[in-house]
Amino acid sequence: MALATALTKLLKIEHPILLAPMDVVADARLTAAVSGAGGFGILGGGYGNGEWLARELPLLAASGQRFGVGFITWSLQKQEPLLDLVLEHRPAAVMLSFGDPASLVPRIHRAGALVICQVQTLAMAKEALAAGADILVAQGMEAGGHGAARGLFTLLPEVVDAAGKTPVVAAGGIADGRAMAAAMMLGASGVLMGTRFYATDESPAAAAAKERVCRAGGDDSVRSIVFDISRRNVWPAPFTGRCLRNAYLQRWLGREVELMQNIGAEADRYARARSDGDFDVAAVIAGEAAAFVKEVLPAATIVQRVAADAEALLGKRVAA
Amino acid sequence: MALATALTKLLKIEHPILLAPMDVVADARLTAAVSGAGGFGILGGGYGNGEWLARELPLLAASGQRFGVGFITWSLQKQEPLLDLVLEHRPAAVMLSFGDPASLVPRIHRAGALVICQVQTLAMAKEALAAGADILVAQGMEAGGHGAARGLFTLLPEVVDAAGKTPVVAAGGIADGRAMAAAMMLGASGVLMGTRFYATDESPAAAAAKERVCRAGGDDSVRSIVFDISRRNVWPAPFTGRCLRNAYLQRWLGREVELMQNIGAEADRYARARSDGDFDVAAVIAGEAAAFVKEVLPAATIVQRVAADAEALLGKRVAA
Repeated sequence: MALATALTKLLKIEHPILLAPMDVVADARLTAAVSGAGGFGILGGGYGNGEWLARELPLLAASGQRFGVGFITWSLQKQEPLLDLVLEHRPAAVMLSFGDPASLVPRIHRAGALVICQVQTLAMAKEALAAGADILVAQGMEAGGHGAARGLFTLLPEVVDAAGKTPVVAAGGIADGRAMAAAMMLGASGVLMGTRFYATDESPAAAAAKERVCRAGGDDSVRSIVFDISRRNVWPAPFTGRCLRNAYLQRWLGREVELMQNIGAEADRYARARSDGDFDVAAVIAGEAAAFVKEVLPAATIVQRVAADAEALLGKRVAA
Repeated sequence: MALATALTKLLKIEHPILLAPMDVVADARLTAAVSGAGGFGILGGGYGNGEWLARELPLLAASGQRFGVGFITWSLQKQEPLLDLVLEHRPAAVMLSFGDPASLVPRIHRAGALVICQVQTLAMAKEALAAGADILVAQGMEAGGHGAARGLFTLLPEVVDAAGKTPVVAAGGIADGRAMAAAMMLGASGVLMGTRFYATDESPAAAAAKERVCRAGGDDSVRSIVFDISRRNVWPAPFTGRCLRNAYLQRWLGREVELMQNIGAEADRYARARSDGDFDVAAVIAGEAAAFVKEVLPAATIVQRVAADAEALLGKRVAA
């Protein structure tokens, strides 16, 4: 028995479990693996890299799986032709995060795809609903990578109350069946997971980075702008980036102004560490849910286990 | 049918619903009202005010209800005789928040009372368990007043996993039955609510402040140190204070250093606003759960409604 919700119906999937479109990490292989297991994979288009998309999209289309493609809204809006490239490959959905989606929604709808909008505040949820979003993702501050300041425990039901019949997906802090069951008690129609799928066999992340996720507790994951400063990519307020604590973060947290004053040398050093895979300096992007990630597993095992555990907790009670 | 958990058994209560010991706001009347409705009231001892305690404790003892008394650990440790005054009134439990409780636990146990320790990180949970806490409260950053940075959605299950047989109560962001049901899916044995009980008939808070809580959405509640600076009471890291956004917060948020540079005039201005009840300047201390507080109600109605709604969502499934 699977959990049937408004989300599974709309996306035509078996389990209401979505892969977060982690920039570059959610590649064709990982995306297809999640969809193949009965969830919904969303390719990590991120800032929008034409070369990467031109390689991954045909691979994904060739998998025969239904899929979505996710973008950072404000970055995609600087290079809108990339959206045409995506839509030619017939995604079932396009997911937009961070920025007003209004200018992009009509084109996505005309191509026959659904629009999934990720939001971090109630105000953003209202903006996305007004723009015509088909599905909302309420992302709590527990999430890895970029996000804002609202906790999922209140953001989710507040967005659910505002969304009416539009399904709402919970994101940020979810890595197991009990978290999925809790999210559904708060009115979610499904969940979206990044950190849990980061540590999978299919994930292209470095083995050493996956290992750090498996070892980390929730206290080891910190929201800051340290790594954004170091790669010369500070986002507008209210967005910050959540990554695992490492020696570099320990050194600069609370000294952001000083880091900016030394950015010439530090940006070079940081870039080298990224290309060398030195994770004492380079960021491992992971959320508080790293606390519940203890081993690298196949993506399909995760989809099946999380769904089964949530179903066991919820019984027949859910039809959100 | 009530939800029977390890917490209801230990505290000998009907509903696993606790009143947060809001400094001065959780007075004898509000505490007795929550206990009288089948929950567990905890008097808001806060920093420790001998005169206030000498007035409220006899009133509370005279109510005939079981009750707890809550303190800010580091403040109580500066004036430990207050603990003797409390223990003479035979509380069923003493709740300690913010600081290492180890030095106080044996005295509380010798007096026959339970020790409830509120924690904001996994590290603090381990410290409280080692000190001999009987009950843990996992407080998410969604909470009103002082707190830290972890979201409840991950802090709660991580503390549950660490606590073994010690019951864990969820706090921060909880104001209704669906939130209670979600917390129990994450392994909680009960919930602790502040903001929801702030807006009750029995609460001694100003009517204008209660009205602001009823009007606020979750986006209107902000963690900062602005108000702590203005009352010359900045807490050590990692603690900050969550309050509702008002004109004063809008003016100073992000300009904390400048506020400190002008503290002479601003502290006077702030103190005047507090005594005048001018909530465009003075803080209304409330959490993100203000989103779900729409009207002032009797405390008993809240206990009964939250319990009934959670029970309906959970059915017979819970025995945490």
